[in-house]
Amino acid sequence: MVAEHTVKAFDEDITRLRGLIGEMGGLAEVAIGEAMDALVKGSDALAQAVIARDKRIDALEQDIDQLTVRIIALRAPMADDLREVIASLKIAGMVERVGDYAKNIAKRSGGIKERAQFEPLTLLPAMAEIASGMIHDVLTAYAARDAQAAMAVIECDAKVDAFYDSVFRNLVSHMMENPSTISSAAELLFVARSLERIGDHATNIAEMVYFAATGEYLGDRKDA
Amino acid sequence: MVAEHTVKAFDEDITRLRGLIGEMGGLAEVAIGEAMDALVKGSDALAQAVIARDKRIDALEQDIDQLTVRIIALRAPMADDLREVIASLKIAGMVERVGDYAKNIAKRSGGIKERAQFEPLTLLPAMAEIASGMIHDVLTAYAARDAQAAMAVIECDAKVDAFYDSVFRNLVSHMMENPSTISSAAELLFVARSLERIGDHATNIAEMVYFAATGEYLGDRKDA
Repeated sequence: MVAEHTVKAFDEDITRLRGLIGEMGGLAEVAIGEAMDALVKGSDALAQAVIARDKRIDALEQDIDQLTVRIIALRAPMADDLREVIASLKIAGMVERVGDYAKNIAKRSGGIKERAQFEPLTLLPAMAEIASGMIHDVLTAYAARDAQAAMAVIECDAKVDAFYDSVFRNLVSHMMENPSTISSAAELLFVARSLERIGDHATNIAEMVYFAATGEYLGDRKDA
Repeated sequence: MVAEHTVKAFDEDITRLRGLIGEMGGLAEVAIGEAMDALVKGSDALAQAVIARDKRIDALEQDIDQLTVRIIALRAPMADDLREVIASLKIAGMVERVGDYAKNIAKRSGGIKERAQFEPLTLLPAMAEIASGMIHDVLTAYAARDAQAAMAVIECDAKVDAFYDSVFRNLVSHMMENPSTISSAAELLFVARSLERIGDHATNIAEMVYFAATGEYLGDRKDA
């Protein structure tokens, strides 16, 4: 029989764990938005701020790793509770990658010249908004333990992939027509790719939320 | 007091966990090598085989997730043992990503024409060999719980990064001089990027091996 105070302590721990993941997710969303701002406006100061703040996301992941170890060691959670702790640990790793992709976009920003020429600079912010919205929605689903909401996020990924294909084709044509802008266009290709990967990571997180809530795996992992 | 049979059962479980991660790592190494072969030779059959076999890596990650949950639930490992189980769970997620990057390289292979023209097609296999060697060495360090060997792997990442910079510059020049090959060159940019990311993941795994062995974090996470 588990004592009342252990159950209460576990609930407090898991609330703290969810809070830390929510905080990481919030920082990652802000990072995506500001990295895109830096990219579109060509603001080096904004790009540097995004890069510097990524350390906070990395530190949160380490806090989560350590809290997870402590929860398991002290509370010995069983069944659903243990599954949730393990899923949270994996989700924290995925959110950390999302932060890295945002940082990457910020890094690319400095390498882009001839901004006015690039049509993708109007497409990419729309793509970023969908990808960032997926991260927001999937972490809301995580907080609510809502497997259905997590599955709805996965459906959005097709929109991000369609944007990616369109931006890719657009950039390759642009390169062919304007060889002098190839270096900038190559940077934008990587930005598009980073956003596409953020969508993939939202999908991976959704699968983990589904696993935590139901104990079942949602088919195969999203292709990278 | 922990009963003798529990300790023995835990040792068997952890041996099984290490075996599964070793198996994943072996498959990921083979996938990198064969994806590069497919790329250099333009073999669609080989590329398809790499893509199909990635499912096995994904399935192993799920096996590891479930085994981890079972170990924690049944054996209630403490301190170093718990840290090792948690680190193994995170490492499995990282090896799965390495498999995804190899699959990605295989997918790009089909989009490359004019193979003979590209100097990077001679540089990329050498880069892949270093990246793949890092994965091999870091998983050997994991199996041996060897924090020093893990740190040695991290030092190799500078070589992979240097290759990446060189290939990137080479491809951008190639695009400028041969606009008709831009589409193939863009695919090769992503191949170089995937290999660079495999090096980053080897570094991340090394940091986890270090954490598992020592309980300390090795400074900041490698930049994405």
